[in-house]
Amino acid sequence: MDGRFDRDLRWRTGAQVLPVDCYSKNDFKITRVALEAAYKKAQEDNIRVKGVILTNPSNPLGTILDRETLKSIASFSNEKNIHLVCDEIFAATVFNQSNFIGISEILEEEGAQYNLGLFHVVYSLSKDLGLPGFRVGVVYSYNDAVLSCGRKMSSFGLVSTQTQYLIAGMLSDEVFVENFLTESRKRLSARHKDFIQKLAEVDIGCLNSNAGLYCWMDLRKLLKDATLDGEIELWSTIIHKVKLNVSPGSSCHCSEPGWFRVCFANMDDETMNEAIKRIRSFVFESKFVGVAEPAKACRWKRSHLRLSFNGSGRFEDVTLSPHSPLVHATT
Amino acid sequence: MDGRFDRDLRWRTGAQVLPVDCYSKNDFKITRVALEAAYKKAQEDNIRVKGVILTNPSNPLGTILDRETLKSIASFSNEKNIHLVCDEIFAATVFNQSNFIGISEILEEEGAQYNLGLFHVVYSLSKDLGLPGFRVGVVYSYNDAVLSCGRKMSSFGLVSTQTQYLIAGMLSDEVFVENFLTESRKRLSARHKDFIQKLAEVDIGCLNSNAGLYCWMDLRKLLKDATLDGEIELWSTIIHKVKLNVSPGSSCHCSEPGWFRVCFANMDDETMNEAIKRIRSFVFESKFVGVAEPAKACRWKRSHLRLSFNGSGRFEDVTLSPHSPLVHATT
Repeated sequence: MDGRFDRDLRWRTGAQVLPVDCYSKNDFKITRVALEAAYKKAQEDNIRVKGVILTNPSNPLGTILDRETLKSIASFSNEKNIHLVCDEIFAATVFNQSNFIGISEILEEEGAQYNLGLFHVVYSLSKDLGLPGFRVGVVYSYNDAVLSCGRKMSSFGLVSTQTQYLIAGMLSDEVFVENFLTESRKRLSARHKDFIQKLAEVDIGCLNSNAGLYCWMDLRKLLKDATLDGEIELWSTIIHKVKLNVSPGSSCHCSEPGWFRVCFANMDDETMNEAIKRIRSFVFESKFVGVAEPAKACRWKRSHLRLSFNGSGRFEDVTLSPHSPLVHATT
Repeated sequence: MDGRFDRDLRWRTGAQVLPVDCYSKNDFKITRVALEAAYKKAQEDNIRVKGVILTNPSNPLGTILDRETLKSIASFSNEKNIHLVCDEIFAATVFNQSNFIGISEILEEEGAQYNLGLFHVVYSLSKDLGLPGFRVGVVYSYNDAVLSCGRKMSSFGLVSTQTQYLIAGMLSDEVFVENFLTESRKRLSARHKDFIQKLAEVDIGCLNSNAGLYCWMDLRKLLKDATLDGEIELWSTIIHKVKLNVSPGSSCHCSEPGWFRVCFANMDDETMNEAIKRIRSFVFESKFVGVAEPAKACRWKRSHLRLSFNGSGRFEDVTLSPHSPLVHATT
């Protein structure tokens, strides 16, 4: 699940966010079985589930949900009469000729089967257009009550007129937008291929992916202990000794230790090559002296390279509320 | 009290906002007696008072709080151990050589007497610089917990980088800011004098004021009934027949019927003269045919003139919470 959900949903509202556990054996797919298991566990814990929230394209996996999976999740929400919130913030980062399918496409095709008031899409210009500083987001809901509330609650968070004016001009230039996204996808694809290949050269694999600005890196072989503690120990070594800022899977509530989210898109070629160089040295040293103490074997540069948008590794205590939990997918 | 408080505080949080009743007999001053009366009434109603909120310069009065009144309110808050929130959004609109005194000046002078964590200032560029569309506000609090919470909660309401860049450039040009505010005060003063004088010519008085973009107009003589219902009836006539959008005092929780907030600054000379012309006709007709049916006696233009920022006349039902009320001043 997207690591931002804790900050954006749990910390500010007191709602609980429970992971839907997914595993590498089936490429972390969200199955009906996994959804039912999470739902059942919540019920056993006396938690009333209010909805499912997921990112599609997935953050941190970098994969897109196929039609059948989307239909299965929509049916699950509909049958349980709980909300489905689809965060499609990376929708236009899909590369390699893959076609993104949004939840609205499923609803248009077979909406008659569903209670549409349960379905909501959130979006932003931050990722697809590289404009996080503009603070422009979108709520596209099929629920009038949600829209009405949003209109009333938005006055403290409106987009400045100056920025509205600029964005309106930019988005209404369809040729520009098309060219921008095409070029962006082309560059993402090339960088992704290059990055994955260089990781493969040092025997590091990643989950097959075709979207997002990051990939899901498999460092299970480097774990001293195949536990979440072992993962945090490895992460600590990577951030403090290797000086690379990646996100441990546990920060995204991944229950299978050894997976890390690594951003490949937010740096220039020189920085990427430096990052790869450090990873290569680290892997090489690990084989000979063990992962816990790589600093003894080589000299690491003092500068940190940020390979994660949210890899702060921050874990804060929060007050949990039993009243308004959300189940969401570990994607 | 500022009519926005209902929208900004009550409707979104469920907190109650209780007026501190002030009256024309002493120019609507906020006295210790009035504060104590409001506090006592809240206690009798089993409402736990959490703070006082006021606008200084006052909205809707257009007056500024003198040093003694500010000290009295600060002492009141301190003694009751409740918060004081000063909305100083109109601070730089003060004209006619009057000097605005902010609460921070009082705290600097005699802060040792107070529990500083109870004091908070809010501000915005909307009024002083005429930039409401930029959505730039300020919380200046002496309370670290409030600031810490604000930092954590602000991510959905940040100012866009583009707007930050422009504002930073503008505000760091001190010569520009000084010239702008000087010219703005000069124009406000001239317009205020002109407007007040033209109202006086048709025997309409206003509370003496020296700040803000509005004044507090005394239409008590035009009320059919000296009640809040009579005030709403007069307001309805003014908005529907005279086609002027002013705010009835009751929308600011003023308990004395017949006072109206009228904006004088947000229009050009031609519009102001048209507004004055309509007011003159209305007053003239009222003397002969009564206020309830002015449309029968004269033809009103169909266009509405907006003389109020918030004069929507909207009254919505809200759920009141007994847990977190606020007392604030009818200013």
